[in-house]
Amino acid sequence: MSWGVDNLPYGVFSRGGEAPRVGVRYGDSVLDLAAALHDEVFAAPSLNPFMARGRAAWSDTRRLVQTKLTEDLSVTEQHLVPLDQVRLHLPFEVADYVDFYCSLDHASNVGKIFRPNSEPLPANWLHLPIGYHGRAGTVVVSGTPVRRPQGQLRAGEFGPCQKLDIEAELGFVVGVPSRHGFPAGPLEEHVFGVTLLNDWSARDIQAWEYVPLGPFLGKSFATSISPWVTPLEALPRIPGRAQDPEPLDYLRRHGDWGLDIQVEVWLNGELVSRPPYSSMYWTPDQMLAHMTVNGASLRTGDLFASGTISGPEREQRGSLIELTWNGTDPIKLADGQTRAFLQDGDTVTLRATAAGLTLGEVSGTVV
Amino acid sequence: MSWGVDNLPYGVFSRGGEAPRVGVRYGDSVLDLAAALHDEVFAAPSLNPFMARGRAAWSDTRRLVQTKLTEDLSVTEQHLVPLDQVRLHLPFEVADYVDFYCSLDHASNVGKIFRPNSEPLPANWLHLPIGYHGRAGTVVVSGTPVRRPQGQLRAGEFGPCQKLDIEAELGFVVGVPSRHGFPAGPLEEHVFGVTLLNDWSARDIQAWEYVPLGPFLGKSFATSISPWVTPLEALPRIPGRAQDPEPLDYLRRHGDWGLDIQVEVWLNGELVSRPPYSSMYWTPDQMLAHMTVNGASLRTGDLFASGTISGPEREQRGSLIELTWNGTDPIKLADGQTRAFLQDGDTVTLRATAAGLTLGEVSGTVV
Repeated sequence: MSWGVDNLPYGVFSRGGEAPRVGVRYGDSVLDLAAALHDEVFAAPSLNPFMARGRAAWSDTRRLVQTKLTEDLSVTEQHLVPLDQVRLHLPFEVADYVDFYCSLDHASNVGKIFRPNSEPLPANWLHLPIGYHGRAGTVVVSGTPVRRPQGQLRAGEFGPCQKLDIEAELGFVVGVPSRHGFPAGPLEEHVFGVTLLNDWSARDIQAWEYVPLGPFLGKSFATSISPWVTPLEALPRIPGRAQDPEPLDYLRRHGDWGLDIQVEVWLNGELVSRPPYSSMYWTPDQMLAHMTVNGASLRTGDLFASGTISGPEREQRGSLIELTWNGTDPIKLADGQTRAFLQDGDTVTLRATAAGLTLGEVSGTVV
Repeated sequence: MSWGVDNLPYGVFSRGGEAPRVGVRYGDSVLDLAAALHDEVFAAPSLNPFMARGRAAWSDTRRLVQTKLTEDLSVTEQHLVPLDQVRLHLPFEVADYVDFYCSLDHASNVGKIFRPNSEPLPANWLHLPIGYHGRAGTVVVSGTPVRRPQGQLRAGEFGPCQKLDIEAELGFVVGVPSRHGFPAGPLEEHVFGVTLLNDWSARDIQAWEYVPLGPFLGKSFATSISPWVTPLEALPRIPGRAQDPEPLDYLRRHGDWGLDIQVEVWLNGELVSRPPYSSMYWTPDQMLAHMTVNGASLRTGDLFASGTISGPEREQRGSLIELTWNGTDPIKLADGQTRAFLQDGDTVTLRATAAGLTLGEVSGTVV
């Protein structure tokens, strides 16, 4: 089954008027971990206290849950709560949120669209994983409605965003802090797991504001994540893409952190794109090394995202601005409608699988 | 006296092995508020719970403390702890940190230095207060040593930052949250107070990384703030600078939020600049309106900063890159030394007064 003992993502759920607590998804149920494992860390309303325990605890807990769900299932099943009886919450308290720009195909496409008279790739793109800080306070859980933002669309013009877009991304969730003033250690010592992420984007607001200090209001209105955080340990790993030029020492790869994840973008129930995570240029270990090489510290709950996942083919593009080439080539939907950018009432859902493993989906409706 | 009952900034202190708690500075002492006011909100290790109570509570508490320190001083003085017996901590938990770019003189100077072949001001500068998100997790309290960051200085070159700089800024601290999806209310309903802020900057790292997504590692290694948060209510207000073009409706000023604050930049005990806050172009009410016009919500502990404060004169510039024109015209210090950028062991201290009122200083030494 797609939510079996090889998967077991973590989330935060509540039932009726009860306080939110940590659970693990198994089949169509949530395992109440505080009850099943008699550990108060899981009675917290977020994953943060558990994530702070570190890698050995993550592995031990995973093995323990696997055992409980196989050998002791007759005892454990009393702690399984059907999904349709629970509400799912934001799974962790977001500390700092950083968004990267790691897809060569996405960066090339955006460069061609936004800067048609320059080289598509910025001069630094092949030398470092470009990133910037986003707004942690507006990261919301899947299912939260997304209000169309208003703002300055160009000089002297104000109104509702006319180019509301999505970005299909993977987010990496930090469990173990690092020391301020020093680079962090290896990815697997710090990062607890991954979550699908939709980085909603107001392209008109963004285009007018982003020079010279980067995206701000074009992004800060909302970022949606899946209610389920898949443990890093569960993910199948593959080699990353070849890199030329050779990265500097601090960005050198010491293991295979390419991820074999197939993402799907669904618009109003219709599959419109299939971005392959395997096509990403910069790998998550490189993002982490870069983010902390200057001594910036990590905290439990830090979230860093890959940037839009786009593959080389048109049907692999992870944003509407690429799929419709800034609205000039709208998507045709099955019911005869077209979309350049999102309309009110549109629902976007990101789904993903990793070699048979299902990731938690992230969905949002524009209101 | 400069720390009298018209001032009364808030901070977090500890004595010996005791837990940190909230205090108010009075003269050369800290008033232990939990003890003096019998209110457990001040036994917290941060200002956040008190700040969340809102404007009426802020005013009531301020009046109560003023009364205790005048009419009831004989009773209250038992709760005054000499400053030399306490340790001062980060006064609040930083939620999101946003840095603006509100000085016309600073933006013009930086434009001339970084983009000598273009118009100094970006096309959007006079239309909106440009801002970006910084790293909340590396905001540190005055006195914390600042490790010189390392990073990519240009293509293929890695090493310690050679152009370590400061930015003299004022930070605004949010007490009252706003609703996600809607613009925030007036400044005085949300912002509790101000703190001096030094936005340490690695100019070489920043110059190489900042196109197209803005500053990242050039800023994220450290941001220092004063241990004292001066209540907004205590600050003298003046009209803001004239603005042309007329701002859009959502940025229209409804009151006087210019601030008559005189900042001083001290390098190794020598006064090197006197940036006047009165010269800022965008006012804090405009920053707040802009930051939330897209529906981005505020949380208790959000910090937004003005950007470098620079006046029109050379001796009013709030960063070394401006004072030394990117190192080409070094500062001459009294002992015969010169500085283009900061050397290891250098101590930078920002001080400020507002019409006789002293703000808490922020200091840091490069290690």
